[in-house]
Amino acid sequence: MSVGLSEPQSLAAIAGIRLAGTSAGIYRQPRTDVFLMEIAPGSSAAAVFTRNRFSAAPVELAKAHLRGQAPRFCLVNSGNANAGTGAAGLADAQACCGHVAQLAGCDVEEVLPFSTGVIGQRLPVENICQAAGRCFDGLTADGWLECARAMMTTDTVAKGISDTLVLGGTELTITGIAKGSGMIRPDMATMLAFVATDAAVDPALLQQWLQAGMEKSFNRITVDGDTSTNDACLLIATGKSGVQIQADTPDCGKFRDSLDKVLGFLARAIVRDGEGASKFVTIRVEQGVDRQECLKVAYAIAHSPLVKTAVFASDPNWGRILAAVGRAGIDDLDVSAVEIYLDDVCIVEQGGISASYTEAQGQSVMAGDEILIRVVLNRGVAGELVWTSDLSYDYVRINAEYRT
Amino acid sequence: MSVGLSEPQSLAAIAGIRLAGTSAGIYRQPRTDVFLMEIAPGSSAAAVFTRNRFSAAPVELAKAHLRGQAPRFCLVNSGNANAGTGAAGLADAQACCGHVAQLAGCDVEEVLPFSTGVIGQRLPVENICQAAGRCFDGLTADGWLECARAMMTTDTVAKGISDTLVLGGTELTITGIAKGSGMIRPDMATMLAFVATDAAVDPALLQQWLQAGMEKSFNRITVDGDTSTNDACLLIATGKSGVQIQADTPDCGKFRDSLDKVLGFLARAIVRDGEGASKFVTIRVEQGVDRQECLKVAYAIAHSPLVKTAVFASDPNWGRILAAVGRAGIDDLDVSAVEIYLDDVCIVEQGGISASYTEAQGQSVMAGDEILIRVVLNRGVAGELVWTSDLSYDYVRINAEYRT
Repeated sequence: MSVGLSEPQSLAAIAGIRLAGTSAGIYRQPRTDVFLMEIAPGSSAAAVFTRNRFSAAPVELAKAHLRGQAPRFCLVNSGNANAGTGAAGLADAQACCGHVAQLAGCDVEEVLPFSTGVIGQRLPVENICQAAGRCFDGLTADGWLECARAMMTTDTVAKGISDTLVLGGTELTITGIAKGSGMIRPDMATMLAFVATDAAVDPALLQQWLQAGMEKSFNRITVDGDTSTNDACLLIATGKSGVQIQADTPDCGKFRDSLDKVLGFLARAIVRDGEGASKFVTIRVEQGVDRQECLKVAYAIAHSPLVKTAVFASDPNWGRILAAVGRAGIDDLDVSAVEIYLDDVCIVEQGGISASYTEAQGQSVMAGDEILIRVVLNRGVAGELVWTSDLSYDYVRINAEYRT
Repeated sequence: MSVGLSEPQSLAAIAGIRLAGTSAGIYRQPRTDVFLMEIAPGSSAAAVFTRNRFSAAPVELAKAHLRGQAPRFCLVNSGNANAGTGAAGLADAQACCGHVAQLAGCDVEEVLPFSTGVIGQRLPVENICQAAGRCFDGLTADGWLECARAMMTTDTVAKGISDTLVLGGTELTITGIAKGSGMIRPDMATMLAFVATDAAVDPALLQQWLQAGMEKSFNRITVDGDTSTNDACLLIATGKSGVQIQADTPDCGKFRDSLDKVLGFLARAIVRDGEGASKFVTIRVEQGVDRQECLKVAYAIAHSPLVKTAVFASDPNWGRILAAVGRAGIDDLDVSAVEIYLDDVCIVEQGGISASYTEAQGQSVMAGDEILIRVVLNRGVAGELVWTSDLSYDYVRINAEYRT
């Protein structure tokens, strides 16, 4: 189940990018579980990866490979995270990259590996290499949607979006795909996301804009507070449109708006398809001293199992929101100044229940699929925004049965 | 359901303490929901309260009343937390205390109020005052177990323990009762706990020993990471045994051991009866640089919904434990030095799965009701211990249905 999210009907091709997916038999039930992305020479690349100290072998290798040059290929698999696999896992990832390099006649460092799925199992290297060969023969510019499907794990909907903008009479396109549903509290990245544009962008600028975009998208979502070992987001600018985006120009602003739109959509899509999600919750904290304290409050609410189960039950149990604000770690918080709203219904003011509040008002808001929890701290001018989902029976079922 | 916990058959009386419970009709289904505890004049008292900034009206009032003198009475109710109720809630708590003071002919400051239950509803003051009157007439030294039952909310088992020790030929007794099952991550205290002894202890020492004991008991448990607005723990020393405990003596060591035993039992009892708990999990982190980083790692594991659902499923999904260690916020952690054990089975070493590990070994440990997760950081000499429960369907059910 997902909240207000359906598979995109189509995704726009990006000149300079070709893709293909196939089955390497990683899942018991055969399905597309591997894809290969080819990136035209001369493209710029930017990437962000998990900060989890137990980062997976493919994350370590992709970071190392990105140091010297732009990538020519990405080899992606679901069903196996190749994490917690030590030196053997690193060798497995290297073997897969080496196979693609051999097929393509490029350096092994020009191939980036990405894996997602169960932690701690050895990668079926031979199967993946064979699958990579089939992908190599089938590469097509129209492969985006198939690849979005190939990397799904507990996702119920393939996630992707295309956006276009016209700069100087030339149409530019940005297409992105992402996967992720559980173990979601990205820290500099999400599970897996691949975004490409035909604009030309200097790599340093591309990295800067990706990181800034992350702070408004993937780094503001949480399903369960668990940061994955495999989070990665790759952004490619092929330059095939012939339009170069320069820093600090009006065109740059338009391009970054479009990029932020794509990143934001993909990040929220992950929450909408969060494991067991039946509600999509936006938490906005306003008028804090700084953004850090706003985030503390927002995440205290977003990670509270009690708030999340109340949201699942459509129960306006605002006392749990208030308790989460109170334990968020702001030592000098004056609770009598705090206001809490469900959508535009004021539920808490002056440290207690609002005089105007009725349970019927709260129930009416909570009955919806999309809920805004707004906390006004009344002690500054900073604000922050976090997106999350509820905690349902299905979350427990999905995660209790994950390996069975 | 609770894990390895049953109601105590009896609790020892403490000379100088009398108690009684009754029904004030706070719950739809009539049950004992109010109790009164009488404390003999000349007793010492120590207390710790929640650090939640939205602390409840009774917490605020109890703290204020404790400033001037030792308490003579505690008035406790379940079913209504009197939290998030602003100035009106404070007036309600004052009215209840005032009524008890009038009955007893003592100062209102000698009466401490404690409440637990739903947040944000006004206290039924008149009913509680009438109930307090009935309790006053029925006070008895043998009322401990009835009062443990009176303060239960989502608890399934009344929690209490008595311990005795002999000092200089005189037998001393410590009896404690506690309630708590959800919204459990105490910060300086748990939901509600009342402990008394007939030893004589100077109030300053009593407070010091209570706080030290807390650090090994109530401040090391978590069910869901949510710190309540109403947490409070009160420790009374009536002195009626005639034995004075002095600091830094062998007797003091024995007394504090006994006190720590009572506090530890009550804290673990809350986890054993955690909402929806089917497993009792001990998380021990060893060989860290300092206790802070050990606690970070322990709580990252204890709060991970993914670890907790895997424990519920008896699934040795050690990858989730490894991922939690990796995101615990220790920036310079060398993951290749980390070892992880389930009971005495080594599952992770050198950054990956242990060569000797078999899934059957892990399953055998996880099939039990009581599980030890041990993480060896191999970078120092500090260690810490945290207790928690699993995340089950019943946790979601209990908290989705709490107000229905």
